Amino acid sequence: MDTASGGKTTNNIPLISLTTDFGLTDEYVGVMKGVILRCAPLLPIVDLCHHIEPQNLVQAAFLLAASFRYFPGNTLHVVVVDPGVGTERKILLVRGCGHFFLAPDNGVLSFLPLQDDSTAILQVTNRELFLPSVSNTFHGRDIFAPVAGALAAGKPPASVGPRITADEVQRIALPVPHLAPDGASLTGMVIGADHFGNLLTNIHHQDLASLKSDAGNLQVEIGGVCIAGLSSSYGASPAGTLLALIGSRDYLEIALTGGHAGRHLTAAFGQSVLVKKILYKNEIRI
Amino acid sequence: MDTASGGKTTNNIPLISLTTDFGLTDEYVGVMKGVILRCAPLLPIVDLCHHIEPQNLVQAAFLLAASFRYFPGNTLHVVVVDPGVGTERKILLVRGCGHFFLAPDNGVLSFLPLQDDSTAILQVTNRELFLPSVSNTFHGRDIFAPVAGALAAGKPPASVGPRITADEVQRIALPVPHLAPDGASLTGMVIGADHFGNLLTNIHHQDLASLKSDAGNLQVEIGGVCIAGLSSSYGASPAGTLLALIGSRDYLEIALTGGHAGRHLTAAFGQSVLVKKILYKNEIRI
Amino acid sequence: MDTASGGKTTNNIPLISLTTDFGLTDEYVGVMKGVILRCAPLLPIVDLCHHIEPQNLVQAAFLLAASFRYFPGNTLHVVVVDPGVGTERKILLVRGCGHFFLAPDNGVLSFLPLQDDSTAILQVTNRELFLPSVSNTFHGRDIFAPVAGALAAGKPPASVGPRITADEVQRIALPVPHLAPDGASLTGMVIGADHFGNLLTNIHHQDLASLKSDAGNLQVEIGGVCIAGLSSSYGASPAGTLLALIGSRDYLEIALTGGHAGRHLTAAFGQSVLVKKILYKNEIRI
Repeated sequence: MDTASGGKTTNNIPLISLTTDFGLTDEYVGVMKGVILRCAPLLPIVDLCHHIEPQNLVQAAFLLAASFRYFPGNTLHVVVVDPGVGTERKILLVRGCGHFFLAPDNGVLSFLPLQDDSTAILQVTNRELFLPSVSNTFHGRDIFAPVAGALAAGKPPASVGPRITADEVQRIALPVPHLAPDGASLTGMVIGADHFGNLLTNIHHQDLASLKSDAGNLQVEIGGVCIAGLSSSYGASPAGTLLALIGSRDYLEIALTGGHAGRHLTAAFGQSVLVKKILYKNEIRI
Repeated sequence: MDTASGGKTTNNIPLISLTTDFGLTDEYVGVMKGVILRCAPLLPIVDLCHHIEPQNLVQAAFLLAASFRYFPGNTLHVVVVDPGVGTERKILLVRGCGHFFLAPDNGVLSFLPLQDDSTAILQVTNRELFLPSVSNTFHGRDIFAPVAGALAAGKPPASVGPRITADEVQRIALPVPHLAPDGASLTGMVIGADHFGNLLTNIHHQDLASLKSDAGNLQVEIGGVCIAGLSSSYGASPAGTLLALIGSRDYLEIALTGGHAGRHLTAAFGQSVLVKKILYKNEIRI
Repeated sequence: MDTASGGKTTNNIPLISLTTDFGLTDEYVGVMKGVILRCAPLLPIVDLCHHIEPQNLVQAAFLLAASFRYFPGNTLHVVVVDPGVGTERKILLVRGCGHFFLAPDNGVLSFLPLQDDSTAILQVTNRELFLPSVSNTFHGRDIFAPVAGALAAGKPPASVGPRITADEVQRIALPVPHLAPDGASLTGMVIGADHFGNLLTNIHHQDLASLKSDAGNLQVEIGGVCIAGLSSSYGASPAGTLLALIGSRDYLEIALTGGHAGRHLTAAFGQSVLVKKILYKNEIRI
């Protein structure tokens, strides 16, 4: 990270991505863009997601971790899911994984792979970069947007405030799946449903390798329903078929071909998902 | 279409339009934009529509046909309404009508006027243009976005894959209105409702000319309700009036002044719409 | 305002903001952007809001007045909330407050501070700037977008049509709060709820200064519920607490920590909000 203390530098920020829980029914997102473009007039701004459930930090953290790597290097990802706006929570600028992240210090960056030594964490404190009048209710407009715009326009990262250590940063607990003592089954949970009704789980495709059984057939149980085997795609079966498959985030998903799995199973956040390997009747274990 | 086999060329693509059934509650659209901008950093990207009903090819095909001509020439229209993602369906790049279209081969381009000789159809097969790892669940991110970005950055269209013929392409049936044998009435149907509740039909304003009666007054019947005459605008009548008019797509629409015609008439896709010309009581046929 | 009658000039329009009641389920917003970018290919376009309730001029007028100043100077704000589309209502181009506004003449610009002498109002009449075929149903596409694009591309404002006076422009009544004759209480009303369920009122923070009581404690009454004191931020109290605070638009808002005040109070547009200053039991007036 450039820590030059003065003079205009370039951070080579090619674009800003925005993730909020603001929705699109109000002016909030548009106003943030207005403020950013006052500082960085031609900078592309991409809406990553504005429909995070209000104040759902786990959802935002998962989404950001699944998405950031598809953006150009040095993208500045601005995340405003901020139940503590106007209270004493910190604001962070993180440089890591080849990207920049500007977010409240509430754990929303917890699932990013930021462990290596090249990660730098700064606390945003320099009021000269903020709007002249800072409200207690809309830091997206009054702090995040002007700071993001200043960085995109070339202000050195070190100008935002002092460097802090990883220990000083808030973290949220990642709900991790649980492997049974005998290694034969894995219990995870539903963490949300997407627009198509596909149920997202917290079971990463690499978690499945931890199952110890050498029976070759995966079975997924959710809400009393058993799904046999992993499908390769949503459209691989007749309409109305419940499928388990590895989704685009590399996590296990439950889908209903041509339908909405979430409504079909009336499943919601926290619903248990059990994965085990079974031997089919017509199989002979070698 | 430029078919040069090597070297960087320019396709003069001024912008990309995106049409999907992804909705905006997830990261899917934002991630596609991230991938596109990795290839073509300053390219404008316009959201044409992301609220196609899941996998509704007829809706997407109508919308695209009604919209593309309002964009600059050489716009690349990327359409990802793709129930067959991950199965063996083809992906097409079409150059026609002065625009580019990148879409699954599932009929979603069926309503475009692509009949003339200058139309070129290519099958997208060149994996060098895709992301290094291609999932079975999100070709929008892994194939459509990087191919679109490469084309926008100047890759020659011929680099995507081999040319194929129109006969090899999937088509969907356009629901066309039916003229009665005596030419006195036309039966079409509702194909959707817009945000305002205006009911869109499949009756083009030119279809009305096929009515043979020389009575001067058009009457529209829907759900047992008769609407007399064509109105010129939504605001031409007192609130609460049901109107028939030619909408912005040049098709017959049913509207409710100051209200929501779709809910008022509880009309949905497929609802019959009858148009005829009638003689009013106080008219004398000359 | 540049009133040169010929030759290309520059208006230094850095971006266009769009505010409509079109929603995002149809192609309407995307098509407007296509038309704008035909004229001004690289111009940034920011969605300010497309979820104005259909034809709700008060909501749009409030939102625009609260937002425009956060955009770069000379931004062209295009507002298409237009129940009178296709009727005889005028279309206005206004230059004032250091910005441009293009909107139907229906009062949607009423809450902007446009009183000073430097404000110029033009009636948009020059059909040469419109699309060749103008529908009666979609002036956003056929008039507003091409006129906005032409202005952004450098057409002089005077080219749109003749100058008119402020007296000729439609206004809507701003619902203003009412101060009791004794100056001890202020009665305003709810004018909407935002995405988080925060209830917006028409009571500006400066209105509170008009309360004459010297008791130091503000009390807000809504729907039979009393809220004591003004909070400084949404997160300042335990979950489930009803708060009154000054929101980001500088108006009084009612919020529910961690919840949705609008649903909790079943409050809607027009609901009365009473503000008074009270003396708490344990206080002694000095």
